[in-house]
This record gives sequence, structure tokens and C-alpha cells, in this order.
Amino acid sequence: MTAPDDPLVIFTPSGKRGRFPAGTPVLTAARQLGVDLDSVCGGRGICSKCQITPAYGDFPKHGLTVTEDALTPWNAVEERYKSKRGLIEGRRLGCQACIAGNVVIDVPPESQVHKQVVRKRAEARQIVMDPATRLYYVEVAEPDMHEPSGDLERLERALSDQWGLAHVKGDLRTLQMLQPALRKGAWSVTCAVYHGDGLGEARILHVWPGFYEGSIYGLAIDLGSTTIAGHLCDLVTGEVLASTGLMNPQIRFGEDLMSRVSYAMLNPNGAAEMTRAVRGAMNALVEQTAAEARIAPELIFEAVIVCNPVMHHLLLGIDPVELGQAPFALATASAQTLWASEIDMRMHPDARIYILPCIAGHVGADAAAVALSEAPNQSDELMLVVDVGTNAEILLGNKEKVLACSSPTGPAFEGAQISSGQRAAPGAIERVEIDPVSKEPRFRVIGCDLWSDAPGFAEATRATGISGICGSGIIEVIAEMRMAGLVDAGGLIGSAEQTGTSRCVPEGRTHAYLLHDGSAEGGPRILVTQGDVRAIQLAKSALYAGARLLMDQLGVESVDRVVLAGAFGAHISPKHAMVLGMIPDCDLAKVTSAGNAAGTGARIALLNSAARREVETLVTLIHKVETAIEPRFQEHFVAANAIPHASDPFPRLASVVALPAVAFNVGGDRGDRGRRRRAS
Amino acid sequence: MTAPDDPLVIFTPSGKRGRFPAGTPVLTAARQLGVDLDSVCGGRGICSKCQITPAYGDFPKHGLTVTEDALTPWNAVEERYKSKRGLIEGRRLGCQACIAGNVVIDVPPESQVHKQVVRKRAEARQIVMDPATRLYYVEVAEPDMHEPSGDLERLERALSDQWGLAHVKGDLRTLQMLQPALRKGAWSVTCAVYHGDGLGEARILHVWPGFYEGSIYGLAIDLGSTTIAGHLCDLVTGEVLASTGLMNPQIRFGEDLMSRVSYAMLNPNGAAEMTRAVRGAMNALVEQTAAEARIAPELIFEAVIVCNPVMHHLLLGIDPVELGQAPFALATASAQTLWASEIDMRMHPDARIYILPCIAGHVGADAAAVALSEAPNQSDELMLVVDVGTNAEILLGNKEKVLACSSPTGPAFEGAQISSGQRAAPGAIERVEIDPVSKEPRFRVIGCDLWSDAPGFAEATRATGISGICGSGIIEVIAEMRMAGLVDAGGLIGSAEQTGTSRCVPEGRTHAYLLHDGSAEGGPRILVTQGDVRAIQLAKSALYAGARLLMDQLGVESVDRVVLAGAFGAHISPKHAMVLGMIPDCDLAKVTSAGNAAGTGARIALLNSAARREVETLVTLIHKVETAIEPRFQEHFVAANAIPHASDPFPRLASVVALPAVAFNVGGDRGDRGRRRRAS
Repeated sequence: MTAPDDPLVIFTPSGKRGRFPAGTPVLTAARQLGVDLDSVCGGRGICSKCQITPAYGDFPKHGLTVTEDALTPWNAVEERYKSKRGLIEGRRLGCQACIAGNVVIDVPPESQVHKQVVRKRAEARQIVMDPATRLYYVEVAEPDMHEPSGDLERLERALSDQWGLAHVKGDLRTLQMLQPALRKGAWSVTCAVYHGDGLGEARILHVWPGFYEGSIYGLAIDLGSTTIAGHLCDLVTGEVLASTGLMNPQIRFGEDLMSRVSYAMLNPNGAAEMTRAVRGAMNALVEQTAAEARIAPELIFEAVIVCNPVMHHLLLGIDPVELGQAPFALATASAQTLWASEIDMRMHPDARIYILPCIAGHVGADAAAVALSEAPNQSDELMLVVDVGTNAEILLGNKEKVLACSSPTGPAFEGAQISSGQRAAPGAIERVEIDPVSKEPRFRVIGCDLWSDAPGFAEATRATGISGICGSGIIEVIAEMRMAGLVDAGGLIGSAEQTGTSRCVPEGRTHAYLLHDGSAEGGPRILVTQGDVRAIQLAKSALYAGARLLMDQLGVESVDRVVLAGAFGAHISPKHAMVLGMIPDCDLAKVTSAGNAAGTGARIALLNSAARREVETLVTLIHKVETAIEPRFQEHFVAANAIPHASDPFPRLASVVALPAVAFNVGGDRGDRGRRRRAS
Repeated sequence: MTAPDDPLVIFTPSGKRGRFPAGTPVLTAARQLGVDLDSVCGGRGICSKCQITPAYGDFPKHGLTVTEDALTPWNAVEERYKSKRGLIEGRRLGCQACIAGNVVIDVPPESQVHKQVVRKRAEARQIVMDPATRLYYVEVAEPDMHEPSGDLERLERALSDQWGLAHVKGDLRTLQMLQPALRKGAWSVTCAVYHGDGLGEARILHVWPGFYEGSIYGLAIDLGSTTIAGHLCDLVTGEVLASTGLMNPQIRFGEDLMSRVSYAMLNPNGAAEMTRAVRGAMNALVEQTAAEARIAPELIFEAVIVCNPVMHHLLLGIDPVELGQAPFALATASAQTLWASEIDMRMHPDARIYILPCIAGHVGADAAAVALSEAPNQSDELMLVVDVGTNAEILLGNKEKVLACSSPTGPAFEGAQISSGQRAAPGAIERVEIDPVSKEPRFRVIGCDLWSDAPGFAEATRATGISGICGSGIIEVIAEMRMAGLVDAGGLIGSAEQTGTSRCVPEGRTHAYLLHDGSAEGGPRILVTQGDVRAIQLAKSALYAGARLLMDQLGVESVDRVVLAGAFGAHISPKHAMVLGMIPDCDLAKVTSAGNAAGTGARIALLNSAARREVETLVTLIHKVETAIEPRFQEHFVAANAIPHASDPFPRLASVVALPAVAFNVGGDRGDRGRRRRAS
């Protein structure tokens, strides 16, 4: 049907081009060329998703001159849309503007179906919008007594005819709302269709009368042992509308995973109690994120959950007892697709839950999510990815091979077991510097951009207060204390006399460092105690030992790149992590902080359904190492207890432990650990 | 691998034959030949489903002599099985007995997978066992820490390797029970697998440790406007273990469908109230049938439901308002597969519900079930099928074409609106004869094989009593009253003086016939009142008019065969139905009674999953006629009010109405109907 003298249409940024008869709508031309131009209403001038920007003038590169009459004139539909909702100057609706001459048409990012969601880090995987649940506007045939068919069947036919969607079925609740919606919408409705059931079937989750102006939402959840983080995303734009978190209430049954498994073993209804607790918290998270984003929870149509295997089983209502003993058998390793109601989650009543696959008995869906987000399997360089939580997920590998393990660091990195610890929330200290000469600290708190020694800090933090230290703050303060000579290689905090600062105050038989005294204003005294340093030492030893174990398995002594991910919000400082000895030696420029990588992996799977199939394959390719049965893990753990630092400021203290021979892989504080054991 | 001199094995009754090396188990040979020999344990000598009977001696037809050593000797597994559970003399276990020489092997019916379920009527469709939910015994690989995989994934692999089942997934509740079951069963389990989700996917609904000795059950439900009937079937043998029924509690919202639709229109929560009521009744039915069969309701894994469109929508929680007005649009016409929990039914927690497709807005899944059961679409003769209920489902057709309609008969045929009416239960009068000379009645009640004038009747009915008249009894008594000259063609009951019997007693301004007086023993006086006759006249006129309307549409004046089905239990007498004028003229020998055909259709769909696909296609081929908008329906209805009978005994009464010109298709009692309207 196209003639050689038909107008030439070039789309940017794709560069796709073709000739179309005059009068062809731009949207039609885009579809025929496979240009990524969105539309919810199917070209009826209602949804405005197909906005385009024609470019006029000379295009020597294309050998084209585009005149102002290259598209048909601005029409009444566009005028009505602009007057009611507004339209950026120069934009046209792709379904209304028709081709009249040679033209260059730009598709702005927000008009692309598969738009990229912004991620800041250059090395990070980009998220391309391709959600499992999407909106479709359709016009449905009216019933005819002489050709009887159900309203649902006519809706299915409309989805097939107008959108090419085959095998679409309606959930029961869709059926319950369908007839009034069709009649109220004068035989047009907008459907939310879920495409993720596999085997080519899709389900209608909701119908709105006529064209639905609103959006639909999804929740990406990183369900950790200590903290639960949720990102509420717009399933159309990909935008994160709210990020929030709360403590896992299971913590009262045991701080780490093994103590929760024990609780399940020792108490007849222990597992069921913990299941109730975590499901309750999930609902609190739904409510909290929805409230923060000012949307109704019923507009959340999907949730993607990542978690470790024990949380996975407890959330699903499976007794985790088998995960507490070799061979650590999972009930299932596969990805799960469930109705939200199956795990008592209150979102849209027909919302679907996708839970990423687990890798092995101790390496869960959270590790799979980190692998999806950080993609070591796509890296040329040898990458170490550590996701710091109560259990650290550790991945090591490159394009050739990826290894994974999980290491029981305990909850210290998340602020639990730390005297002034708290979760990353406004008022929490997240950055710390200690002057090596004066030993005086300055810090920043979440929710305020000023350092604590800047003018106006007190004013700026009045609302939130200064309430405690979050995970990244704890790492920084202990590393800074070490660098300022307040802590020795063995982890002992010096006295005021030894360190020369009155901030080192006695606390029982040990000492503590006074980071902030808010008592004059009725706030807390924020101390870093000897117990805090010990907790962090144990945690970082476990983390380091896990990474070393994977390096042993791969037969390498160093890595090319390190990605530090923290399960909860704030970013970990690479420098301080290195000082603390959390990670093996690496060029500091090659150490980056990835924020909540597991949460990001959940967000990727939420916004891009192809990523779900990708991670399901990826987990089968990851080689898993079981820390719990590897004797070398224990050895590495014990050897990694010291806090190495090139210049040790008070060697008279350091003399009680053997100094590390090589900065990052040997420490010898068995004596110190022995004392600790006796004390406890 | 087979050599020409290998032993020849012939299976009966299939006649399948082949040569197999000596030592081949009979079960293996059967499978290779495609012989229908059951096995749940996969040939491990546990389930005994593969019992066979070797035949010895001369088989001239096959040119074979079978000697006693044609199979390997009776072995220890068989001996253990026989001593523990018993085995019919001559039987062997097909998985244990191996071929040793030429042999003829009979597969008894109970060892066939696709065994036929007994149905009495020769012309009725046979039911072949092919249920959607089946049991499989498997041995599952133990977990291996070095090759991590979930227990579910290893179970899935076992089902694939040992049973050839691909794409089997586990429901969440299966996951919750899987790990203890595998360990308790020493890595063997029996699974109930549901194959009905379409698109090739199957789901594990339950796992039992080791070999599960019990059976699993399904419920076929005919959900009528007035009565609900359930047949509890063994999903392995097909046996009906309990048939029970109860009144539809929605009757308090309106006796017929249109009054329930009105209730939904006039009351804000009317539809929801009726949904709650019917779901409650469904649960009562589940409990009642399970109790009668002495099984736990949790062993019911499937239910198949048939019902009219209004009950369909109310059960599913869909407001039926659209069904009350043209164009009578269904929310959905398609078959529904749901979890029992979606409609609040308490059976096995993961039980599936299958609801047959509807044909049109007034022709429901019950009509589809009647079509499935009575199969007019497979008939050479022109068949009329009437399923008598509060709404009568009427089908007319043959191999060429099938028409269907639904006619609003009201609940009289089910014993409602009848002064002494009751549902078909022990104590209900179901058969009646009235002596034409003495005008004395005799009758039979459900639960007793004796006629009321037989010696020992009083004794035999002492336990149940004589409580009322069920639907088939009402039809008989009024037809007998007409034949005995107690009722005239217009439907008036004569006085004692007119009829010559003191059983005709005055009742207000009309008369009633005293069928049974139990008052001396504290029982009821069972009368047939003028109101009863009027109710039956209205019901039978509607039924007749529906049948005539279909005949008009097809352009025929007579039918070859009539099948009378009653929604509730007892069988309708063809002779009495003819006398009453319920059905068009037909050779009495060609009129048969089918019992609850809709319920049978439900049972077919329960026991044979291929029948579900069949009925889904069948409904698209049935041409539906809408009685509510056909003016000829009203004409036929009015014309059919009289009760024709060749010899009218008291013409002085008959003179008030016009006598029918042709026995079965004309009556002219407009005057009578007019009076009735004034009276009401």
C-alpha cells in the first residue's frame, strides 16, 4: 500500500523510518515500524500517552526538510485535551496528528512504553519498564439477546481485537464488578490485566468504567530478618513514590535466623506465630507506603518480595525447621506467584505476589535479587557483591561463573545489638568524621544536609532530633575511631588517659566514646560502647569470611571490583568499610556503594516482567557455597576479627593481640575472643 | 528387543496382544500395549490397583494353550498383600507376576483406569472414569547440599520421571505440608494432582506420607432455585457414596427466579444476602453428604456445580440484576474453574470448583448439564428433554441441531406451593394409584417398597411416618384424580356428591381430596386441594408451552422421544406426565424418566474431565430460545391450562370450560384463569 513517493517518516531517538500514505496517524506509523510509542486508549485521543514532538527545519543528515505542514493541523481533540489537561508546547497527540509530508518525529521518554527508570550509578543495571500488570482501554460490544454471550466474553473479544491479547480470563472479582462498570462506562472500560501467570494466560484484575485517569501501583519489598523495606512504584511510569521501612517484628522470637528456626523447633505453634507476625508487618508496610504516597492500598496490584530462605518459608507459612539442619532442604526453590490473599496481604483483593526464586537452603531470593540488580554474571571484571544485612548475601564472579553464599553477620549492621543503634530514618546519624588530632566528631543525620558543626545544624535538626546511629553510621564511627586512634587493632576502646580525649568515658570495666550528648536538650547521649565495637567486629568477620571463602573456591587472591549493598536505605561508605576490614583488599576507586541492592532487584522484577524469567534462569547458574559446613569459613572468621589500620596509635594496647601480617587477610585475636567468651 | 519366539500375551477384554521377553512384568506389558490397567504406586506392589486374572487352558480362537507356568510363581509381595488385605482367588498383582510363556490375561473392570460407572438406562450416556484429580505414589530423591534444590522441585521431577506428568506445580498449602510428609514417608509420598487448570498445567493439591490407603472424593451439585441436590462420588471408583439434598434457603427471598432478581434490585444488599444464604446451604450440603458417606469433608477435592443463570450469579457473588431485564446479559457464559475458598466452600482447603458453562441469560449450566447427560446432540431421533424444576430446562433436537429454552414453571413440581408438598425424602408419597370405581387411593412412600394397601405397610413406615407428597407424587395424584373422575378438564375438584366419594371434602368454597389421614396416629392429614391442582396446572402449562415453542422453532408437530428429568430425586412417571399434559404427544413407550439429569450431567463432568471440554463446546452449538420475549410462549401457556383426558366423568362440571379439541395441545380455560386472577 506504500508508494515510493509517499512521505518519509523518521522517528527519533530510535532512527526507525518508513514511508506512509498521507493521512496515516503518527501512532499507526509508529506501530507499523515497531517504534516504542505508548497508548492506553488505543488511539482514541483520550489517554494522551502517545504524545510526540514533530521537528521542523532542515535535516541534512537525513536529506530532509520538514515544513510546518508535515503533519495535519492541530485538531479539536487535541485542543480539548490541551484545554482540559494541558500539553507541553510543541507536543502533538500521535493518534490525532496524521502524516502530510516528510517528517521527523521525536518520541519523548515519557511516551515510550519501555521507558528507562532512572538509576544513578553508571555501572548499575538499568530498569526498562515492562510491568506484568498494565492498563488497557477498550470499547466492548453490547449484549444481543439473539447472539447470547456473557459480558466477560465480549470484553475478552474486545481485548483480543483491540489489543491483540489472547487467552485473557477474568478473576471472579472482576466478574463481580464487570456488569455495572460496562454500563456506567457506556460499554467502554479500562482493564488492569496481569500477564504473569505463565503459559500465556493473562487475567483481568480490575475494570473501571470508561477511561481510567489514575494509575496503578506495585510494591517492591526486601523482607530482611531485622528490617523490612518497601518501595512503592507507579506501574506505568516506574517512579518510586514512597520508600519506607519498619522493623521485622519477628525479632522478638530471635535476632538471627537460626534462633528463629530454634524457636519454631521448640514451640508447637512457633512457626505459625512468626508467620502471623511477619504477615502483620507486611500489611503495616503496605499501609505505610500507601499512606506516604497518598494512594489507596487497593490500587496496589502487585508486590514483589525478596527475602532469605527462613523469612521466605515463614512468610509462606512453611515451617523452617529443615533450614536449621543439614542438608538445609528448602520446601521449594522456585519462584512463587501467589494471590496476595494467600499470604493474607491486604492490597487490591486480586493483587498478585511474585517471590523471587531461592538459590539454596541458605542463599535466598534476596541473593537472587542482588544478582539481578548488580548482574555479576554480565561483568567482565571479577566482581564481589556484598549485601549487608542480618545475613549477608555475598556473590563473587564474572561472565564465566558466579558463586554465592550467605553469611550470618547478625543484626549489628542494621543497628540492632548496638547500644544507640536504630534503623535508617530521619534523625539517625549516618555519616561520621573524627578529627585525628582533637578526637572531636562531626556527623550528619538523615533528613538534614548539614554537618553537625555547620551553622544552622541545630535549627535544621530540631524537628527530627538526633535519635541514634543507623547501620552506615555505625560502620563509619568505628572506622573513624580506629583511624583516630581511639580503638586498637584488637577492637579495644582506649581510656581518656590512653586516647587523650574526655569523650572516652568509662563504662563498666571498659570504655565508650561519646559521639553526641543531647541530654541538655532532653535528647539521648549517643555512645559507642565496647559492646558495639565487639558486635561490629563479629559481624564484619562473618562478612569477610564469607567473601574469602568464595575467593578460595574460585582460587583467587583479589577481586577487581567490590559493590557494597546495604539492606536498609543509607549508603555504606567504601572507605570506612575498607578500614573496618569488612571486605577484601581492592582499589578504593573500584569499591562502590549500591544502596539496597536486594530491594533494587525486587524493583527490577516488579517493573520488568522479563527480568523474572531472567532471574529464574540465573539462579540455576549460580554455584552456591554453604558456609555452615565449610571448615575454612570458621578459620577465616576467627582470623578476621582484628580491625587493621596501617598506623596504630597506641601500640601499648595493640600488644595484647598479634598485629596483622598482611593488612586485610590475617588477624590473630584468639586471645581476645577467648576473653569475650568467658565474659559472656 | 522383542524376538518372534518371545511369549505371546493377549489381554482381555481389549484384545490387545504382543510378544514380550520372559520376565516382563504384566503391568509393563500392559503399558506398552496401551492396555487400560490401573496403578497408583507405579508397580511397587503397594496399591493392588493392577490386579489381573490369568486364564489357563486352550484358547482355540487365539491358537494358544496357556499352561499354569505361563506367569512367574506367586511371590512374597503378593503373599504379603493377600495376607494383609485379601485377594480374590485367581487374581495376581500385575506388577509382580511376570511373563514366562504364552498367556491370556483378563483385566477385571475394577483394575481399569477408565472404568465405566454404572448407569441403568440403556439409552443414557455412560460415564467413563477420567477424573481431573488423581492419586500418584512417588519416591522422591533426598536433598543434597551440594546440588541444592527444593523438596517440591524434586517431587515435581519424580512425578515427571515416574508418571510422565509435566508442568506440575504445588499449591501453597502443598508446600506447607510437603516437608514433614516426605520425611514421615521416608521420601515417598502419595499426591493428589489436579489436571483441570487448562493450558497443560497441573497442581498438587495434597501430599500424604508414603502410600495413601484411602480415597479422594468429589461432589456433583445440582443447585436449583428450590432444592439443592448433591452426589458424593469416589473419584477413584466413580461410586456414588451419598446422595442428599436440602431446600435452597434463598426461597425466603422469593420462590421463583424473577422474584429473587427483584429482591436484589429493591434491596441495597439483597444480592449479597442471597449469596451468603446459598453459600451457607452449599456448605451444609457438603457437611451432610460427607457425614452420610462417613468421610471427612477435607477429603472432597472437587465439586462440580450446575445451576440456572440466576443461581449461578448469586453463587458467584455477581448481582443478577441484568438477568431480570432484556437483553438478559450474563456476566459470563464460560465455564468457571475456581478455588472452593473463592466462594467460601469448606471442603479440602485447596479443592477446585468447576461450574459448567451457561447457554444464555435464561438457559443455564443446568441445561448444559442436561444436554451433557442426555446427549440430544448425539441422537438420531428427535428428542425432547424436559428437566422439571422451579425453572424447567427444555432441550429439543437431534444430531443436526439442538434448541434450548428455560420455562418458569415455579416450584410446584418440587413440592413447594403444594399444601402437603415436601421434598423427596423418606416418608414422602412418591407413587399414587386411585381406583376408578371406588375412588380409594393407594400409594407408596420413599423408603418403603410396599404399597399402602399391602400387609405390613404400617409397620414398615413406622420409622419414617407419612409426611407429605414429593414432586413425582403430586404429578401422579393429580393425574390419577383426573383419570378417576375426581377432577374435570378445567382442573376443578368435584364435591363428594359429584364424585361419589366422601374423600372429596369441602375446603372453603372449593373441594379437596383426602389422600391419607394419619391424624389417628398423630400424623398429618394429606389433602390435595384445589390450590394444589391450580399450582400444578400453571406449572405444567409453562412446561408444555416451552416445549411447544421449541417445536415451533424447529417446525415440527411431534417428537420421537421424550426424556423426563426431575431435579429432585424421585422419578417422574411418564404415563402420569402424559395424562397431566406436561409434555407433547408421543408414543408412551418412547417416554422415559431420567431422574436428576442435571445432577447426572454434573456427575459426568466430575468423573470425566474430557466431558468438561465437551460441554464447553456443546453449549456454543445449542441454539437458545428466549421464552420471555416470544409472544407465542404466552399463547401456548394460556392454551395449555386444561388437563385433557379421553373420557370425562362428570361433564356437568366440564361444561364450564371448553373441552380440548385435540388431546394434548389445546385447552381453553381463559375464563378459569380470569377467575383465578380475581381471587388472588
